[in-house]
Amino acid sequence: MKNHTRLDPDILRVGHLLADAARLETLAHFRSIDLSTDNKLAQGYDPVTVADRAAERAMLEILARERPDDAVLGEEYGAVKGTSGLTWVLDPIDGTRGFISGTPTWGVLIAIGDCDGPFFGIIDQPYIGERFIGGPGIATMTGPTGTHKLATRRPRDLSEATVFTTFPEVGTKAEGAAFAKVSQKARLTRHGMDCYAYALVAAGQVDLVIEAGLQTYDIQAPIAVVQAAGGIVTDWQGGPAHHGGRAIAAANADIHAQALEILKSCTS
Amino acid sequence: MKNHTRLDPDILRVGHLLADAARLETLAHFRSIDLSTDNKLAQGYDPVTVADRAAERAMLEILARERPDDAVLGEEYGAVKGTSGLTWVLDPIDGTRGFISGTPTWGVLIAIGDCDGPFFGIIDQPYIGERFIGGPGIATMTGPTGTHKLATRRPRDLSEATVFTTFPEVGTKAEGAAFAKVSQKARLTRHGMDCYAYALVAAGQVDLVIEAGLQTYDIQAPIAVVQAAGGIVTDWQGGPAHHGGRAIAAANADIHAQALEILKSCTS
Repeated sequence: MKNHTRLDPDILRVGHLLADAARLETLAHFRSIDLSTDNKLAQGYDPVTVADRAAERAMLEILARERPDDAVLGEEYGAVKGTSGLTWVLDPIDGTRGFISGTPTWGVLIAIGDCDGPFFGIIDQPYIGERFIGGPGIATMTGPTGTHKLATRRPRDLSEATVFTTFPEVGTKAEGAAFAKVSQKARLTRHGMDCYAYALVAAGQVDLVIEAGLQTYDIQAPIAVVQAAGGIVTDWQGGPAHHGGRAIAAANADIHAQALEILKSCTS
Repeated sequence: MKNHTRLDPDILRVGHLLADAARLETLAHFRSIDLSTDNKLAQGYDPVTVADRAAERAMLEILARERPDDAVLGEEYGAVKGTSGLTWVLDPIDGTRGFISGTPTWGVLIAIGDCDGPFFGIIDQPYIGERFIGGPGIATMTGPTGTHKLATRRPRDLSEATVFTTFPEVGTKAEGAAFAKVSQKARLTRHGMDCYAYALVAAGQVDLVIEAGLQTYDIQAPIAVVQAAGGIVTDWQGGPAHHGGRAIAAANADIHAQALEILKSCTS
């Protein structure tokens, strides 16, 4: 993450613009009765809503106008090439299943990074009105109770830890079994919060998020926010996680090592 | 539910007073770093926080002052006897595990009923600022986007339905297997929302909530809210659910019958 010890204020400005635009587009459809969902996959159920597409289009228009030299990778509309060496990574609605069920734990994910990975990210929850921001020199959340600094939890034993996951909904059998080994040793396991779980790591509320089967746009903003708050995000071997796949987000190096030891031995 | 075709306005007034008081007490502790949790059970993990107790005490004080003739059943402080034939049933924080993890899907549950069960209930989510109210002639929710009428979904085939549950966290093996049979036939299953799932049935967002191992204070307010919005709540045999245990909350009689047929055959 060279050259990113201070955040370019223009990136923060445009990040807010993108999140504001996505808030409007997603809230226009959230909990509407006639929300139409298509099915992206022949098998299984991967709903894509009009809200997803409208929010990504709104963000793409802003980036074309405000940051024409940057590349873009979006969930719905794919890639836009750039010349700056920087890429915005957008997931207009992470947790579409939650969105179409009316739960308030989906989020808009916005990140920017280079070939070393993301260095700035936003996790935005439009319905609650919460925005989690992380980057060089910035780690804050603004929500119903005001603006607060983000800081991850201090080390504790895994037996005292809270773990979040999207399992049993995602991952292979072997991945599920590896996760279960960590879960059995933890004090509390919670399911199905999507990106919101990473925001809670950054906010110092939980110790671990463990997932598999991620796309790059699912994990880039969470990486930036969790790392800015003092946490660590890697794959299950301790390597970079920003290309997706298996991820572990940890509040600190100590709990990261405890969980990684179990995950590594189960999935080599 | 005789004599409750119209809601006594004093019950609505006091219901709001109780929910307002519980909001203050719970929000004072939500996401605080030093939240102390005790362990109610020798085995397992059933956190009771200072917020639980403070919220219930605040509600008990209001009831002693405003409705001295009514009985009270609370999660934390047990029973208060009454002479009116009416009982307030209080769960200051339903979803304590969610509360101590920072998720916004716990709720304050307030119900009042007689020997036939609850006829008025409130599901309140203090952090989001959402209040779901159901009783004779009233079925509304107020939240970040204003006040809306509550109305459950129209009938659809189970293969098109969304099901919520606290499984795999609750219930026996046989109960879990019965739930899995319904879940396999449904389009979408979501986990771990506690009382918030019932609010989403009332709001027309999901079709079914299926749970087991409930306490009476877990289910009374959800029954009142879901029924006022047009839904049905029973146990897994189609009988009354207000004493706790196994519960199924359904958007309409049709989806209720589809799910009940499967649950009945698995757990006789």
